Amino acid sequence: MYKVDLNCDLGESFGRYKLGLDEEIIQYISSANIACGFHASDPVAMGKTVALAKKYDVSIGAHPGYLDLMGFGRRNMYISLEEAKAYIKYQIGALYGFCKGNNIKLSHVKPHGALYNMASKDYNLAKAISEAIYEFDKDIILLGLCNSKLIEGAKDAGIRYANEVFADRAYEEDGTLVSRKKEGAVITDEDEAINRVIDMIRKNRVKSITGKYIDINVDSICVHGDSIKALEFVRKISKRLREENIDIRPLNEII
Amino acid sequence: MYKVDLNCDLGESFGRYKLGLDEEIIQYISSANIACGFHASDPVAMGKTVALAKKYDVSIGAHPGYLDLMGFGRRNMYISLEEAKAYIKYQIGALYGFCKGNNIKLSHVKPHGALYNMASKDYNLAKAISEAIYEFDKDIILLGLCNSKLIEGAKDAGIRYANEVFADRAYEEDGTLVSRKKEGAVITDEDEAINRVIDMIRKNRVKSITGKYIDINVDSICVHGDSIKALEFVRKISKRLREENIDIRPLNEII
Amino acid sequence: MYKVDLNCDLGESFGRYKLGLDEEIIQYISSANIACGFHASDPVAMGKTVALAKKYDVSIGAHPGYLDLMGFGRRNMYISLEEAKAYIKYQIGALYGFCKGNNIKLSHVKPHGALYNMASKDYNLAKAISEAIYEFDKDIILLGLCNSKLIEGAKDAGIRYANEVFADRAYEEDGTLVSRKKEGAVITDEDEAINRVIDMIRKNRVKSITGKYIDINVDSICVHGDSIKALEFVRKISKRLREENIDIRPLNEII
Amino acid sequence: MYKVDLNCDLGESFGRYKLGLDEEIIQYISSANIACGFHASDPVAMGKTVALAKKYDVSIGAHPGYLDLMGFGRRNMYISLEEAKAYIKYQIGALYGFCKGNNIKLSHVKPHGALYNMASKDYNLAKAISEAIYEFDKDIILLGLCNSKLIEGAKDAGIRYANEVFADRAYEEDGTLVSRKKEGAVITDEDEAINRVIDMIRKNRVKSITGKYIDINVDSICVHGDSIKALEFVRKISKRLREENIDIRPLNEII
Repeated sequence: MYKVDLNCDLGESFGRYKLGLDEEIIQYISSANIACGFHASDPVAMGKTVALAKKYDVSIGAHPGYLDLMGFGRRNMYISLEEAKAYIKYQIGALYGFCKGNNIKLSHVKPHGALYNMASKDYNLAKAISEAIYEFDKDIILLGLCNSKLIEGAKDAGIRYANEVFADRAYEEDGTLVSRKKEGAVITDEDEAINRVIDMIRKNRVKSITGKYIDINVDSICVHGDSIKALEFVRKISKRLREENIDIRPLNEII
Repeated sequence: MYKVDLNCDLGESFGRYKLGLDEEIIQYISSANIACGFHASDPVAMGKTVALAKKYDVSIGAHPGYLDLMGFGRRNMYISLEEAKAYIKYQIGALYGFCKGNNIKLSHVKPHGALYNMASKDYNLAKAISEAIYEFDKDIILLGLCNSKLIEGAKDAGIRYANEVFADRAYEEDGTLVSRKKEGAVITDEDEAINRVIDMIRKNRVKSITGKYIDINVDSICVHGDSIKALEFVRKISKRLREENIDIRPLNEII
Repeated sequence: MYKVDLNCDLGESFGRYKLGLDEEIIQYISSANIACGFHASDPVAMGKTVALAKKYDVSIGAHPGYLDLMGFGRRNMYISLEEAKAYIKYQIGALYGFCKGNNIKLSHVKPHGALYNMASKDYNLAKAISEAIYEFDKDIILLGLCNSKLIEGAKDAGIRYANEVFADRAYEEDGTLVSRKKEGAVITDEDEAINRVIDMIRKNRVKSITGKYIDINVDSICVHGDSIKALEFVRKISKRLREENIDIRPLNEII
Repeated sequence: MYKVDLNCDLGESFGRYKLGLDEEIIQYISSANIACGFHASDPVAMGKTVALAKKYDVSIGAHPGYLDLMGFGRRNMYISLEEAKAYIKYQIGALYGFCKGNNIKLSHVKPHGALYNMASKDYNLAKAISEAIYEFDKDIILLGLCNSKLIEGAKDAGIRYANEVFADRAYEEDGTLVSRKKEGAVITDEDEAINRVIDMIRKNRVKSITGKYIDINVDSICVHGDSIKALEFVRKISKRLREENIDIRPLNEII
C-alpha cells in the first residue's frame, strides 16, 4: 500500500490581518506546519490553529522562521548558529505552550521561508536547527527538502527526518530544485504536476529537467492554502491520490 | 525551622543591551523569574539564563509580561482575557523550550511589571493567567502579591500559589500595599526593612502604616539584581536570614 | 454653498498582509489618513499610499497610533505625555519622509484607534498630541471627534482643528458619542445615517438619543474602505451629497 | 588650514536599556549619527539626542539601519532595493520629526552596521540609499566608507558625500578596508592609529598593509562613545588634532 503525507503551512494570520483558508484546507491534509510568531501568527492565532488541527486530527508541527514579520520570513538573514538554535527552541517551545496541556505531541518541525531555503544549502545551519530539535525532543521529525542539507543535518544530529517534495517544481540531475530563475523551474500544468508526484511515490523516481530519470524519496508533499486556486489544487491532488490508492497519512506513519 | 524563598527577576538583557548582575545575584537567591521575550530578553539570553540557574541549582520560573519591549512591560495595557491566556501560554512555552530537553521543571510563574500590578487588582485577569498556567501544567506555582487578586485567581483556578512580599514596602490595614503615591509607602531604612521581613516570617504579622499589626503570610521575598546597591541589599538580607536561622529554600519546599 | 470633507483610513496593509480597498475608496474621499507603521503599515506601503493619494489629488494626513501592531492599535495603553509627544513626532516625521521630496504638504493628523478614543476623553493626552503637531508644523490640522477633548487640546495648543462626525453613531445631549454598550448607539439604517449627516451639514444640528436636537459642527465625515459593504456606503453617501449640492472638499478648504 | 570631522553614533539607548556615554562624547565630536528606531533607539531617546546635539552645536545626521533590534542592525539581511529606499526615507523622516519644528537641518546620513557594510560593497544598494536621500532632500550628505561603493552610489545619485576613515583599521592597496579576518586588520596601538590619521589628513595618503603608500581622502573620522576606553581615545585624538592645528569641523564645512 502506498502512502504519502500532505503538509501545509497554517496559522499565518496576525492580529487583525487574516491569511489562509485554514478551515477549508485542514480537511485535506495530514500535517499542519503552524507559524510560531516570528515571521507570522500571534499567540491567539496559534491557540486557535492548534485547536483546529486537533479537531480534524491533523498532525501538528512547528513552523519556525526568521524574526522578520515585515518580510514574512522570506528575506535571507545571517544569524549565528547559537542564535539559530535558540530561535528554534524558543519557537518550538512557544507552540508547545498550546499543546502540552492537551497532551498533543509535536510531530515535526519544518523551517519556514528563507530559513528553510538557507538551511537547505547550508549544512551548519541545518545541523544547528536539527540539534535544537534534538535537544528539545529527539522524537520530533524534521520535515525538509529531499536531497538537501536539511536532511543531512537531521541525520547527523540524530533526529528523524521526512523528505518533502514540491509538486510544481522541476529537479536538477543531482536531485536539487531547479532555481526559479531558470526556465522550466515551475511545472505550470496541474495534471502533469500530479502525475509527477504519483510517479515519485510509486516508482521513487522523477524525470529531471535534463530528461534523465533520477531517484527520489517522497515522504510528504507541500501544498498551500492561501488562495482559492491553491485550495482547488489540493482537492484535485487529494482526489487523484485516493483514486490511485495512495493513502494520505501523517509523517509518523510514513517514516 | 523557619524558611523563606528569595526570588529575583533574571535574564532581562536584550540583544546588545545588557541589564542585571545575573552572575552575582544568582548566588544568593532560591528562585529565578526569567523574562520570556515580550517585555525583555531574547532567545539567546533565555538559554543562557536557564543554564545559569541550573548551574547554581536555583528554581526556574517564567516571568511573562506585556508585549511592550519599548516600555519594559511597565505600561498598563488592556488586553482581552483570551489574549492574556494565550500570551501566558506562549511565553511559558517559549521558556520551556530551553528546559524540556534538560529535564528542568518550571517551578513557578510570576507575571511581570504592569501585568503583575494589573492582575493584583483585577480578579478576571488573575484568573485568566492562572487558568493558562493550569492548562499548561497544573503543578506550576503562581508567585503573586500576598493578599491580592492574583492569589484569589490562583486558588479558584486550582493551582498552587506562593505569597510574595516586598521588603521595602508598607502595608495598608487590609493587607494591600500602600500606594507609592502616599507618603511612607517605601521603607528606606534597610535594617528596618529586614527586621520587618523577619517579623513577617517568624510571627506572620507586619505593622501596617496605621500602626496596627496585621496578619501576613510570607512564602517569598522579592529582591533585585539590577544595581550594585540592590546586590548589596541581597547580601545583607541573606546574611541576616542565616543568622536568624531562617533557611532560604525554593518555592516547592516552602508551600 | 455647503461643503464637507470625507476622510478615510488608508495604507493599513503590512508586509504580506493586505487590508483595505484603497484603490477604490480613494476615488470618493477628500482626505486620506495614512498609517505610520506603529499600529499598521510599513515603509513600502506608506510610500505607495502617499503616491496613490497624490495621483487622486487627495489630502494627505498622518494617522499615528499606539505601538501595538498585534492589537492594530485598538487596545488602550497608558503611556506618559512625553512618550505621547515623541511617538506622534516620530510617526508624523516618518510619513513626511515620503512627502518632503515631492513637495507634498501634510494637511492633517488624525490619531488612530485607542489613541483617538483615549485622547477624546483625556485632555492632557489630547494637548500633548496637539503640542507635538504644533512643534512639527503649526499649519497642520488636528482631525478629531467633535465636542471632544481632542478639539479642546488642539485649541489650547494653538493649532487648527477639524470636527469629525461618524454617520452611523448616535449622540448624547452633551454632544458626545453614545457608548457602544448602550442600545441605539449605532444607526444601522444607511439612509437614516445619511439623512442625519446632511442635516448636520445644512442645519448644524443633530437629534440626540433623547430626541432633543443639539448643535453640532461638521467639518469631516469618517468613512471606511475595509470591506465591499463599506465601499458601497461611501458610494451612496457620495452620490447623495452631490445630489444635495454639498461639495466634498479637503479640510484646508473647509476650516 | 587642515580640518576634519569627527563623527560618532549617538542615541542608541532603547527604553529601559541605556547605551553610550552620549553626554560625554558629544563634547568632542562635530557630527552625531542618531539612531532612528530600526536597529536601536526609540522616539523619546531620539528627541533627547537631537536636543543634546543642538545644545552642543553638533551637526545632526540620521543613522538608519536594518529593522533588527535584536541583532542591533549588525546582521546581514537581504532586502529589495524598493524596501531599502523606503526604509531609509522612513527613518530619515522619523528623525526629521524631531528637527523640523526647531529649524534644525539634517546635515548627513550614515547607514548603520550591516547596512553600511553591505552597501559599501553593493553598488545597487548604495545607489538606492543615495536616491532615497536625494528624494528626501538633495542637500543632505552621505557619510560613507572612503573608496567604497557607498561613495560611488552617492556620486551617481547626485548627492554630496563625505569620505569616512576608521583610525584603527588597516587598508588594502586598492583602498578598501582589510577584512577583520586577516591578521593586521586592526591597528591596536593608539598612537600609531592617531599618527596614521594625521598623515591621511595632511598628506592624503596612508601606508597600506603591503607597505605601499596609497592615496586617501579623509573628510571624517569615525569615533565611538560606548565605553570609557573609547571615550579616552576620543579625548586623545581630539587633543592631538588641536596640537597639530587640525580643526575639528562639521561635514558641511569640510566638503
